[in-house]
Parts: sequence; structure tokens; C-alpha cells
Amino acid sequence: MPNPQLNQHGELQHLLTIEGLPCEVLTHILDTAASFLSISDREVKKVPLMRGKSVFNLFFENSTRTRTTFEIAAKRLSADVINLNIDASSASKGESLLDTIDNLRAMHADMFVVRHAQSGAPFLIAQHLNAHKQRYIHVVNAGDGRHAHPTQGLLDMFTIRHYKQDFSNLTVAIVGDVLHSRVARSDIHALKILGVPEVRVIGPRTLVSSHMEEMGIRLYTDMAQGLKDVDVIIMLRLQNERMNGALLPSAQEFFKNYGLTVERLAMAKPDAIVMHPGPMNRGVEIDSAVADGSQAVILSQVTYGIAVRMAVMSILAGN
Amino acid sequence: MPNPQLNQHGELQHLLTIEGLPCEVLTHILDTAASFLSISDREVKKVPLMRGKSVFNLFFENSTRTRTTFEIAAKRLSADVINLNIDASSASKGESLLDTIDNLRAMHADMFVVRHAQSGAPFLIAQHLNAHKQRYIHVVNAGDGRHAHPTQGLLDMFTIRHYKQDFSNLTVAIVGDVLHSRVARSDIHALKILGVPEVRVIGPRTLVSSHMEEMGIRLYTDMAQGLKDVDVIIMLRLQNERMNGALLPSAQEFFKNYGLTVERLAMAKPDAIVMHPGPMNRGVEIDSAVADGSQAVILSQVTYGIAVRMAVMSILAGN
Amino acid sequence: MPNPQLNQHGELQHLLTIEGLPCEVLTHILDTAASFLSISDREVKKVPLMRGKSVFNLFFENSTRTRTTFEIAAKRLSADVINLNIDASSASKGESLLDTIDNLRAMHADMFVVRHAQSGAPFLIAQHLNAHKQRYIHVVNAGDGRHAHPTQGLLDMFTIRHYKQDFSNLTVAIVGDVLHSRVARSDIHALKILGVPEVRVIGPRTLVSSHMEEMGIRLYTDMAQGLKDVDVIIMLRLQNERMNGALLPSAQEFFKNYGLTVERLAMAKPDAIVMHPGPMNRGVEIDSAVADGSQAVILSQVTYGIAVRMAVMSILAGN
Repeated sequence: MPNPQLNQHGELQHLLTIEGLPCEVLTHILDTAASFLSISDREVKKVPLMRGKSVFNLFFENSTRTRTTFEIAAKRLSADVINLNIDASSASKGESLLDTIDNLRAMHADMFVVRHAQSGAPFLIAQHLNAHKQRYIHVVNAGDGRHAHPTQGLLDMFTIRHYKQDFSNLTVAIVGDVLHSRVARSDIHALKILGVPEVRVIGPRTLVSSHMEEMGIRLYTDMAQGLKDVDVIIMLRLQNERMNGALLPSAQEFFKNYGLTVERLAMAKPDAIVMHPGPMNRGVEIDSAVADGSQAVILSQVTYGIAVRMAVMSILAGN
Repeated sequence: MPNPQLNQHGELQHLLTIEGLPCEVLTHILDTAASFLSISDREVKKVPLMRGKSVFNLFFENSTRTRTTFEIAAKRLSADVINLNIDASSASKGESLLDTIDNLRAMHADMFVVRHAQSGAPFLIAQHLNAHKQRYIHVVNAGDGRHAHPTQGLLDMFTIRHYKQDFSNLTVAIVGDVLHSRVARSDIHALKILGVPEVRVIGPRTLVSSHMEEMGIRLYTDMAQGLKDVDVIIMLRLQNERMNGALLPSAQEFFKNYGLTVERLAMAKPDAIVMHPGPMNRGVEIDSAVADGSQAVILSQVTYGIAVRMAVMSILAGN
Repeated sequence: MPNPQLNQHGELQHLLTIEGLPCEVLTHILDTAASFLSISDREVKKVPLMRGKSVFNLFFENSTRTRTTFEIAAKRLSADVINLNIDASSASKGESLLDTIDNLRAMHADMFVVRHAQSGAPFLIAQHLNAHKQRYIHVVNAGDGRHAHPTQGLLDMFTIRHYKQDFSNLTVAIVGDVLHSRVARSDIHALKILGVPEVRVIGPRTLVSSHMEEMGIRLYTDMAQGLKDVDVIIMLRLQNERMNGALLPSAQEFFKNYGLTVERLAMAKPDAIVMHPGPMNRGVEIDSAVADGSQAVILSQVTYGIAVRMAVMSILAGN
């Protein structure tokens, strides 16, 4: 079965997941993003690459933050952006997801940026468009359920490459609720594809999956051991909704065991960088002294995120 | 009393209802829309006809779908669009409708696209503007109560003309809850003005009005008889809120009697087209086999809807 | 301590409050606004002064009306506008105010227009940006708690100057709930700075502060006395939420004592103008005969408000 993300020339048609993408496609996105980085510094922060294109932000799950990054990226590419916050429950009542998509493509949409609580929703949309030979319409997954968040994965790779240049000799640790994290999943796929030799996952036994070992990931339940000599630490956001379940005792307990403090950070290499996809729960997964410290590159991630999203959108629109 | 929609030169000043409009005005809109159709196919889907104009989408009744079509149309005309979703209840508390309008015209609004649960609200606004000699501000009715939905009526006419060329020898059937439908009302007026010789209405006795016979409409309560040899079938959306009242038994019962199935469609002419204003209730007013079948032109209606709204807005802005 | 609103050259860096601003800064804004007034009358209501700039409307307190005026002003300056309605309660849960700001500045925001229920929030943001030497990012206070609403104050001054030319021989009365009004506070500071010799405040004893006398304001509890021979009457909006407390008996009672009627207006100078920041409670603080009468300049305030906001934004962006 061909990769539904790639067209017959092997070019990116949709960005649904990092899994299965060729290394050159990832590298091309990162290189393009690098060229966009300077645009946001200019007096006039706009390029006309998507002038007159209609980009629909289809957010079936509310996320002001992610929606904003895509809206800025699209506007800096001169696209027309239409925001649609669709309450998933009312959507299911009135009209099916694919009827909504068919309507919007009949309005000559050029791109759908899709956020959905259900894993696979962007895939479903892309397959539907492919089946209808709508090859001028592109889908970007802006986060689907626990499945994938590929632009976050890409911006994390951009950040790592920026600070560490070379992927081929790094040790990267991902810390927290890896089991439920689409960010972790996208990061792990990207790190593997780009050739990172050692990827570690650190978290309580209930929040890491033993499947991961089959993927060549090393599991740690102890922070001191897991952080030893790593080059990159990716902290995950602890979802509040998981906190009061059987999986996790409490925020305080989590911080005691897995919160990133100055002391724990000292286990890593002296030039290790600290990343976080945001928004941070200060005092839960990360201590403020670390979050605001000199090794944190969390705000750089945000800046690079705009450039990476501009790169993804303009590459898709050009294919 | 002069038609408040027309200025002293007989040109369209506001689009409030299709009722009472001269045939040439309708034809001019359809012809203009035809010229806009190709713009949405272009690489850069924009024309500068409304550059620097301020279009306010005033939605006192929530409708993401209709709001989106006007937003796209306005942006493709290069207008600045400001969306205002005004909760009707809080609006009535704080400030009167006309105070809101006065405020926005003081901000030099150029156009109001108005959706309101109350029939006549766009008329009230237009009369208020006319009374204040604000003849450079235009009102487009985007649906008011049970009264009118003129851009839907126009896009339906555009669709019929596209597929059938000539109105003068057609039989058109409108099916469903005609009594409460502003779409049906606008369609009926447009069909009559454009010279369609036979307009039929099909629905349960509780949902069709005997007034219609006075308008020269033929009423049917039986689908088989009503659909016989028609050229065009316009299915209406069944409003869920009507379902649990005295007027209608249930969705299943409605589908049994008035749902458009492949068998029933076979009663119509072999080249009959099937229309629906959307969003569809599949399995209630229309079977999926028909909705996705070769005679359905429902997605074309959506495409033409953008061109028709661009035509209406640019004609108004030019008058 | 230097004024955090001014940069080292004494130019406006942020607009947080009118208090403490030099008279020349106010006059420069009013003069710039006068030059913008004609833009909104043009065929193409746009100038490219902020093309490619990213303006964030950060509304932690809902205000469709104020948000709209800033959105229009920014769009007429050709800026890209991103609206963020942030529910203050959920904001405090997820992420701190300053983390939100840091994220947005990492996206290369150029300007924050901030509305917040808490007094001082825009100050906090500006200090944070100044501390991080982010001198290319500007903050405009769009109303914070009971503290200040400087663009409203400025548009009120623009209106007074338009109708009365000279500030130096005026008597201005502010009527209503002065105690809780950020508009009143901003107006009083502006009137003093611009050299208005007599500023009066009229209201029930529970809603005026005796501190005001120290500022050289004359307090009146009686409308007839307070309005005698004034040139300008600024009516305040009565907040409904104050009505059912201990401070105020009822809307009817308030109107009886402090509502501006034709009879009361006759106490003022014959050419006195009547202002109101809107939205008006007709029949509570103002009678419709006055609101719609020849002395009311309430809609002019709205028109001038766009020009003043364009002036503030473009001056900040240029500094």
C-alpha cells in the first residue's frame, strides 16, 4: 500500500504523521524552515507564496495556541485563513465529517489544517480527498487524539538540529506521560528517521509502553539513570485529565519523581538542552528555575514552530 | 411604496428578499456570478473589487456554514471581513439592534451581512440606513427567521440554469417542510420571476401552506404523484427542532413518506437533478444513494454559492 | 522611576494609561488621528503603515465592541490581526499570563492589544517586555479593571477638541458611576493634562470618590447644579452588575436623579455637547430624546475612535 501522504512522484501531498516519511522529506522541510526563519525578523513579515489560497483551520478540538501558530504561519505566507471551531458533538449530530469536508472543498479550499480528538481523523480526510482525486487540496495534521502531532515533531527536530547540528551522535530523553502523548510519538519517529542512535523514554511504569522497547527505545523509570549524559531532554506536558485516574497519584507526587529540577538536570551533559511543547505546568513536570534557565530552549521552539509550519504549508502548496 | 432594496435608479441597494425583484436584476446577478466562477479555479483566487472595504458578518443566529461562505466570498473580493457573532439575547439586553448598527456605520462599515432568527431584521436595518441616507452602506440578508434566504435562492437558480439552461419549460418540485423554510420561500419567488411554468410543493399537510395555491403552486402530499416527470427536485432540510412537535411524527416516519430514495427519484425525468441546501440529514430527507448519486448536484450548489455571493457583494458595492 | 510607557527618547513605547503622559504626547496622538480621519472616507480605506506586522488582540475580558474597533483600525493599517479571546479562568489554570506573552513574542508579535478584568495586567506585560529588552513589541491597554481605558480617553479628547477647538476655557462634567469607571479616570487625567480649567463629577455620594477633590475636581450630587453652564457632558454607562448591590437603588431611581433628559440638558450651555462611551442604556443614564438629539456627538466619538486607535498603533509601531 502506498504512503497516502506522498504523491506518485514521492512528494509530500499531506502531512499526517512522521512515521514512514523518508529522511530526505524531513530534511527538506527543516532546510526550507531555515530559509523562512529570517522572514519573521523582517520589517514586513510576509512572503506572497500562498497569496489567494484558502486555508481552513478545522479545529474539532479546541486549541487556541496551536491554531494561532498555524494562523500566523498562513498569514505570513499571504494566504486567506478561515478559522472553523467545530464542536465535535454538534458536528456529529448535524453532518458527517466527510460531508463537511466535501462542502469546504466545493468552496475551493486549498488546505485543511485539522485538529481532532479522534486518532486518524486527518487520515480519513486525506484518504477521502485522494479517493476523489482532489490532489490540489492538502491536509496538515495539527494533532489527532493520541496518534500524531507531526509539526510539533518537526519543530522539535529543527530545534535539536539548531543547537546540536548533527543527529548522528546524540542521546535524547523524552520524559513524562509518553503513553498518551502524540508529541512523544511524533518525536520518536522523527528521531529514529533522522538517525539519532539513542532515544530514551523516562516515566512511571503506568505511562510508558513496553512496545517501545521493540522500537529500539530504552525505558527508564528512574530520572537519575535516564538523564545520565543525555544531550537533549524533551519534557512532556502532563495532562490534567489524567491526574485523577488510576494511572497517576498526584501532581505533587509526579513532580517529586519526574519533575525536572536543577539537580536532576545536572545529571545530563553540561550543554544539554531542555525542551517542552508547552503550555508548561510549572512545578508539575518542570521547575521554574529550569524552565527559565540558560539550558531551556522552549521559546526557541515556539519561534521555530512558525518557520516549520510555513515550510510545511508552502511545500505542500507547491506540490 | 418603493422597493427598499432598489435605489432611485432601480439598482440593487440591498439584497433582502427575492420577492418583488425585477427579472433583469436576478439575471444580472446570475450572469455576474458566471463570470466569477473561474476566479475560484485560479492560482490566485482573488480580485481587488472590494479592496479596503469593511464587510461585517453580523450573525445574531449561529451558522458557521453560511458565515464561512460569505467570509470566503468577501476575502476573494479582497475585502476586510470582521465577524461578529452576537448572541441575540445579550444583544437585546445591552444595546438595541439599531444602536449596534449605528455604531458600526460610524466605523465606516461598507456592508452588513445579516443573519437573524427574527424575520424582518435585515429589512429593519436597511430601512434605518435608508432613512439616514446612508446609501453607501449595503445590507445582505443571510437568512432571517422563516422569511427569506435570498442568496440561497439565487445559487439554486444559478444551479438550475447551469444544468437546464432554460427556465421556461421546467417543472420544479420542492419537498419537505415548506411551511417553515426560508429557502423554499426564496426559491419559489425566484422560480416564478424567472418564468418557471410549473412549481410543485410536496410534503405532509401540516408542513405545506394552502396559501401557496394562490401563488400558482401545485400542492402534493404524495411523493410518487408530486415527483412525476419533474426536471428539478429541491429537497429541504428537516429542522430537528420541529421533529418532536405536533407537526411531525418522527424522522423515520418522515423518511418513509417523503425521503428521497432511488425508487422515488425514478418517478422524475431521467435527467432530473437533485438539490439540497445542506447540511443534509442522510436517512431523514434523503437517502445516501441519492445524495452521492449521479443526479445529485449538491456540491455544485456549494461551489456556485461562492460565485453568487461574490456577485451580490460586488454588485452592491458598485451601486 | 522612569515612566514605563516612554522609551529613553521620551517617545511612546506602550499606551497603558494617560496618567503622567506629557501634553505633547497627547497632542501628537490627536494630530496624527486628525490626519487618519480622511482614510476611512476613501474608496480604499487602507494605508500600508503596518503591513506585515502581527497585532494580537488579547481579550481576557470579553468585549466584542472594543475588540472590533481595534481590529478595524489594525486592518486599515494593513496589519495582520489575530484575535485571542482567552477565558481568564482557564488561562490561570493552564499557563501564566507571562508564559502566554512569552509564547506570543516568540512568534514575533509586534503589538498586544490587551483587555483584562484585572487592573494593572497591561502594565505587568509591558514591564515584562521591557525587562526582556523587547523594545520592538508594544502594548496597548484596551481597558484594565477599574484602572484605565486610555484610547477611550483619547477619543473623548479628540471629540471635545473637534467641537470646542480649545481646551483652555472649558467646563466639563462627567456624570454617573465615576467611582468604578476606567473611562472616567482616563478622561479626568486627559482633561487635566490638556489644561481644562474646570472638571466636574456628578453622581450619588456612593459612586463618587472624595479623593477626587484632591485632584482639583468639583463634586456634585445634584444634576441641576452640576450641569449649570457646562460645555461638555460625558455620561458614563451604568454597569448592570452594580445595580442590585448596596451602592445603587435601581435603574429607575438612578434615571430619576441622574438620567440626562432634555430638561436637564437645558441647564448646560446652549451649545454643550453630550458624549457617551457606549453601549448606552437608554432610559437609565440617558433619555432617547437626548441620545438622538442634535447636541449628542456619540456616533462621532465612534468614528473618531477608529482614527485615534490607528494613530496610537501607528505611532507605537514607528517608535
